[in-house]
Amino acid sequence: MNATIDLLNAHRSIRAFTDQPIETSDLHTLIQAGQAAATSSFIQACTVINVTDAEKRQALAQFAGNQAYVAAAPVFLVFCADMKRHQLACQMHDAPMQSGFTEQFITATTDCALFAQNVIVAAESLEMGGVYIGGLRNNIAAVSELLELPELVYPVFGMCLGYPDQNPEVKPRLPLPVVLKTDRYTDTDDQAHLAEYDEVIREYYKTRTGGQKDMSWTEQISGMLVKEARPHMLPFLKEKGYLLK
Amino acid sequence: MNATIDLLNAHRSIRAFTDQPIETSDLHTLIQAGQAAATSSFIQACTVINVTDAEKRQALAQFAGNQAYVAAAPVFLVFCADMKRHQLACQMHDAPMQSGFTEQFITATTDCALFAQNVIVAAESLEMGGVYIGGLRNNIAAVSELLELPELVYPVFGMCLGYPDQNPEVKPRLPLPVVLKTDRYTDTDDQAHLAEYDEVIREYYKTRTGGQKDMSWTEQISGMLVKEARPHMLPFLKEKGYLLK
Repeated sequence: MNATIDLLNAHRSIRAFTDQPIETSDLHTLIQAGQAAATSSFIQACTVINVTDAEKRQALAQFAGNQAYVAAAPVFLVFCADMKRHQLACQMHDAPMQSGFTEQFITATTDCALFAQNVIVAAESLEMGGVYIGGLRNNIAAVSELLELPELVYPVFGMCLGYPDQNPEVKPRLPLPVVLKTDRYTDTDDQAHLAEYDEVIREYYKTRTGGQKDMSWTEQISGMLVKEARPHMLPFLKEKGYLLK
Repeated sequence: MNATIDLLNAHRSIRAFTDQPIETSDLHTLIQAGQAAATSSFIQACTVINVTDAEKRQALAQFAGNQAYVAAAPVFLVFCADMKRHQLACQMHDAPMQSGFTEQFITATTDCALFAQNVIVAAESLEMGGVYIGGLRNNIAAVSELLELPELVYPVFGMCLGYPDQNPEVKPRLPLPVVLKTDRYTDTDDQAHLAEYDEVIREYYKTRTGGQKDMSWTEQISGMLVKEARPHMLPFLKEKGYLLK
C-alpha cells in the first residue's frame, strides 16, 4: 500500500535485542512522536519513565512475572497515566480540581495508549522493535513504589525497545467481519468466523513451536478468562485517586 | 527523520472534509492496520462500527454535543471495547467466564486505543485526516442503544475520517522534561516548564483565532477540571458488565 502501512502491518512483539544501544537523541525522537498523538481535550496525561538503573530493571522484570527481557532490553519505558500535573495547573489558578471520575481514568489511560502506539510505530520505522509489558500490573503497587509514583499517577504498561535479535512471524488477526460491523452491533456470524480463525491460530502456534503448542484462539481465551484478572487493580487505583466515582 | 516519523509529527485534528469518499477497500486497509497493533494477551478486544446510516449519523452528532462533522464526515467509526466475543469463546468451551474485573476494562479499552491510533496513522499516510470524538461519551447510553451494543461492549470513542478540506497548524505539546523522567517520578521543575509552555499555547491560540482566544494551557486545564467529568460513566459501565470489581 505504502511504506507506513506496510510497517504497521509488519508489527510483531520483539523480546530479544542486539547489544546496540538506542541513542538518547533517538529516544527523544520516539517520545516526541508519542506526544504528537491525539490527546483527549488536550489533557496530555501521559508521563514516561525511562528506567536506566540496573537494579530497578531487575526488580521490574521480577514484578512483571520474571520477564528477563524487561531487565535486558536496551531501553525500558513505563507509561504512566498522570493527572498530577493537572492538579498543579489547578493550584496555579486557585481552582478546586474535581478528580476521581471514571471518565478521567478513561481519558488518561487512553492518552497513554495513543502516545505509546506512536512510540512503537516510530521505533519500528527506525528498525527497532519492542513489546508492551502489561505484566507490570501483576505487582502494580510495587512498581508504583519503586518508581516513586505519587497520587494521580499510575503505571499503565511498560515497553521494551531495542534493535531486534529475532525475527518472529506476524501473528494472524481475527477475520475482518468479526471486528468491523456496519451501523449496528451484530454477532450472528461470529461463531462460524471464530471456528475458522481457530484453525488459523492452531496452525500458527504449531508452526512456531515445531508442533509443541496445539491451541486455538477460543481455547486460549477461554482458558485465560476462567481465572481472576488482577483483582488488586481496583483497590490500587482507588488509592491512587482514580475510579472513585 | 524518516517519512513515518514526519507523518506522526504532522498530526492535527481534521474536522472539515472534501466530498471525496473513502473507498471501501481503503477502509478495510485502515481496519486491518488497526488490527495489526499490539493487543493485550492477544485478546483483540476492539470492534469497530462503521456508521453509514444518515439518521444515525445525525443522532450521533447530536449526542456528541452537536458536532456537525460527525454527521458530515465521509466515514464515521465507533471504536468499541468488546468482550462479548470472549464470552462466546468461553461458551464454545463450556468455560465459566469471570468478568467485571477492572483489569479487563483496562485491557479492552487500551486495545481500542492502540487499534484506533494505527487506523488514524494509516489514514494520514493515505493523505486522509481525522479526529477522535470522545464527545460520544456525553450521551453514552443513547449511543449504546442506537448502535444496539450488548452487555460487555462499550463505545470508547468515535473517529471522523475523510480527505482534509482544511490545513490547521500542529498544536505544540508539553516540553519534553515534563513528560519524560528517568528512573523515578519527579516534578520539581514542572511548574517552571508549565509556565513557559503556557506562553507557547497562548501564542498558538492567539495566532489561530486572530487574537480572539487568549488562553494558556494551565488556564484551559484548570477551567475544565473544576467541573464534573461525565459522572454517568461509572454507573453506565457497571451496567455493561465492566468495573464491577
